[in-house]
Amino acid sequence: MPGRSDLLFDALPRLLRRGNKPGVRKMIDGAHAADIANVFRKLTEKQRSTLFPLIDDLGKRSEVLCELDVDIAQEFLATIDDKMLVALLTEMGSDDAADLIDVLPEERRENILHLLHQVGEPEVAELYNYDSQTAAGIMTPDVFALPDSTPAGEAIKALQDHSDSFEMSYYLYVTSAAGDLVGVLSLRQLVLGQPDVPISDLMETDVVRVDIGTDQEDVARLVARYNLLAIPVVDHTNKLVGAVTVDDIIDVIRFEATEDMLKMAGVGDELDHSSTLSAAKARLPWLLASFVGGNIAAILIGLFGSSLAKVVPLAAFFPIVLGMGGNVGIQSATIVTRGIALGRVDTSRLLSVVLREMIISVVCGFVYGSLLGVFAWWRYSESPLVESGMMFGATVGLAVAASMVIAATMGAAVPIAFERLHIDPALASGPFVTTSVDVLGITVYFGIAMMLLGI
Amino acid sequence: MPGRSDLLFDALPRLLRRGNKPGVRKMIDGAHAADIANVFRKLTEKQRSTLFPLIDDLGKRSEVLCELDVDIAQEFLATIDDKMLVALLTEMGSDDAADLIDVLPEERRENILHLLHQVGEPEVAELYNYDSQTAAGIMTPDVFALPDSTPAGEAIKALQDHSDSFEMSYYLYVTSAAGDLVGVLSLRQLVLGQPDVPISDLMETDVVRVDIGTDQEDVARLVARYNLLAIPVVDHTNKLVGAVTVDDIIDVIRFEATEDMLKMAGVGDELDHSSTLSAAKARLPWLLASFVGGNIAAILIGLFGSSLAKVVPLAAFFPIVLGMGGNVGIQSATIVTRGIALGRVDTSRLLSVVLREMIISVVCGFVYGSLLGVFAWWRYSESPLVESGMMFGATVGLAVAASMVIAATMGAAVPIAFERLHIDPALASGPFVTTSVDVLGITVYFGIAMMLLGI
Repeated sequence: MPGRSDLLFDALPRLLRRGNKPGVRKMIDGAHAADIANVFRKLTEKQRSTLFPLIDDLGKRSEVLCELDVDIAQEFLATIDDKMLVALLTEMGSDDAADLIDVLPEERRENILHLLHQVGEPEVAELYNYDSQTAAGIMTPDVFALPDSTPAGEAIKALQDHSDSFEMSYYLYVTSAAGDLVGVLSLRQLVLGQPDVPISDLMETDVVRVDIGTDQEDVARLVARYNLLAIPVVDHTNKLVGAVTVDDIIDVIRFEATEDMLKMAGVGDELDHSSTLSAAKARLPWLLASFVGGNIAAILIGLFGSSLAKVVPLAAFFPIVLGMGGNVGIQSATIVTRGIALGRVDTSRLLSVVLREMIISVVCGFVYGSLLGVFAWWRYSESPLVESGMMFGATVGLAVAASMVIAATMGAAVPIAFERLHIDPALASGPFVTTSVDVLGITVYFGIAMMLLGI
Repeated sequence: MPGRSDLLFDALPRLLRRGNKPGVRKMIDGAHAADIANVFRKLTEKQRSTLFPLIDDLGKRSEVLCELDVDIAQEFLATIDDKMLVALLTEMGSDDAADLIDVLPEERRENILHLLHQVGEPEVAELYNYDSQTAAGIMTPDVFALPDSTPAGEAIKALQDHSDSFEMSYYLYVTSAAGDLVGVLSLRQLVLGQPDVPISDLMETDVVRVDIGTDQEDVARLVARYNLLAIPVVDHTNKLVGAVTVDDIIDVIRFEATEDMLKMAGVGDELDHSSTLSAAKARLPWLLASFVGGNIAAILIGLFGSSLAKVVPLAAFFPIVLGMGGNVGIQSATIVTRGIALGRVDTSRLLSVVLREMIISVVCGFVYGSLLGVFAWWRYSESPLVESGMMFGATVGLAVAASMVIAATMGAAVPIAFERLHIDPALASGPFVTTSVDVLGITVYFGIAMMLLGI
């Protein structure tokens, strides 16, 4: 309920400011871990360090820790001792534990992994070894799996006996004697079966599965396409090693969309930066492309200086020629990049995708080129600065249209080329496309001016 | 499995081209509906109209129809008669049926709703009446709900008896005698309970729920935050009317992310346009802001014409001053807009958000302003076109830094202002921010030039 979490969001900081610890404890007691974690974003560092120890229940404290933003979580990891940390990590799912261990300082990490091994949680160390953006990196190893000869009644009993050890199990995975994944059935299908029928008679054998090394984006695509609640993960010998659940998939989809947006805008992965200075540091390199492009444009304009001096009003239309080009380039690049991410653009058909964007830009270029041409003609028809208002209008109008078509072509072609070269296409959109539009747009503008105005 | 759908994607078009209908039928038989729908994207219109009737099984045909892109689905809806359409709609979930009815031509829609009513499916018409982007618009009315006095054993039996009528039920919702939602338990909790215990003793009473009118984006946020598989929907009297399942939430999250990206880039909702001309039509208005801004910039530069004529090289730096500003503006706008969408930016704290972006831009502006200033100074130190290379460098460097700070301020402030005015903040980013940067950037540039160069 939105109302409930809003209440917490408003009331908890107030109680903390007043130092009303019993009130805070009571409030926390009835609240969901995700809501408590959300409140942390609003607090000062001092308030945060007061609030965390007030979460008495170890299970809830561990849940809150999982839900915190990385930079806030790191604050606490630094303040709690190894014994407490191991206790908290043991409480949570192995996949969440592995993610937290990933953000520990290196010296401490080794020690914690060692301690976890001692208390009988070796799988966290195994998970930690996988790339965090693969199926293995986001899976939980605690899956509900039984041999294919198990009768349905026994399977239900097994579920009842071990119900605590399986994080969100919606499916029963069926394995062969060798541990290979051979089938799946939903808990509903299990409940519907006769108790003495072996689960191999109830299962579906056509199991959508992923490999430990499958990229998390591909895992998410499969879960979305087949409307799954979880997807099993197998190693290279088809042995079942874990499952990725839909709640983690939702996080992946949101993360990947955010990452693409930030890359397209040229901001790195900045949503997580806590300090302003580190945010600035992350953005600086992304502006370099634009800086270099702008300098090349400045040099080009300098080289055409004598032509420009003859018809100074040409300069007045630099912003619109480059601005319209830049916007069209971003339009095409966004359409193509998002299309690739959603699997709707077929990257093997470079030509047809680029052609489509070019045609669209020709239409748009015709409309705005004509408008701009007429406007410039009208405005400079009586001006002593230009010889022929009509030719001047034609120059400006043609230049803006040409700039738009060039931009659309680059905007469509570059992401596809990047994708084929296994570079993230989202990187193409912002800096790369706008920079090349700056350089090419200026060149074409002066080219047209030299032809039509004879300068 | 990716391999399997890739095979279908390659082989099915080939079989169709060869006219091998038995081969196509066999291939379809073993394929998942989502994979078949995916193949349609690759086919020509003629191939599509051959393939669809070859899907003999009514259930699968209806599933494929649900998964098709809107424009392709419309092709088929136009070719099948009302009787067939009603049969297909009856096969699918009421929420999917309502979505398809939404894209029918108006005359036909009435008739189909009437026919559905006759065959005993009135809930589709009810769903159709809700706004498609609210909880009611994406919910299914077929939920598994029982009165609180029901014993657990009977509840399991009810599930077994009606297992076909509930689309993906993971939870049992518990209602009072009056039909109010009072509790929830997972199927696992149900299976774990003693058969004679009433479900009111097993249920959790703290149910996260949404209202029929809740925006789908808020529904998605709750499901993501609390890691739910489904969320119940209640009317204004707290009566249970349906549930939104996690597979639909995944679609919402992807849809909203795409929508935000397209809006930020100024492309409308174009991923779904089939014809190139309609795509161009959708993009044209978004370019208007940039066009108007560019024209205002041109007029401004024209007004400063006599100053510009004195120091023509100033024009060479128009592209970089506006380009760097534009990029910084998009950076800030993207960070803030995405932060709002993910609930990580607190819109009530306008000042602190804007201040943060301003500080970042001051750092970036200092770095690139100094670099550009030195570059311009060096390049124009011997030039007869400028009086003092140093002052010229200072002008250009200051102008680019000022443009970046202005852009960051606009980029951060406009989305927050839009959100507070209940306008979609994603609209602010592209056209609005870059346009205002064009106009303000030019003004400030000439202002600085007049002060420092005395023109």
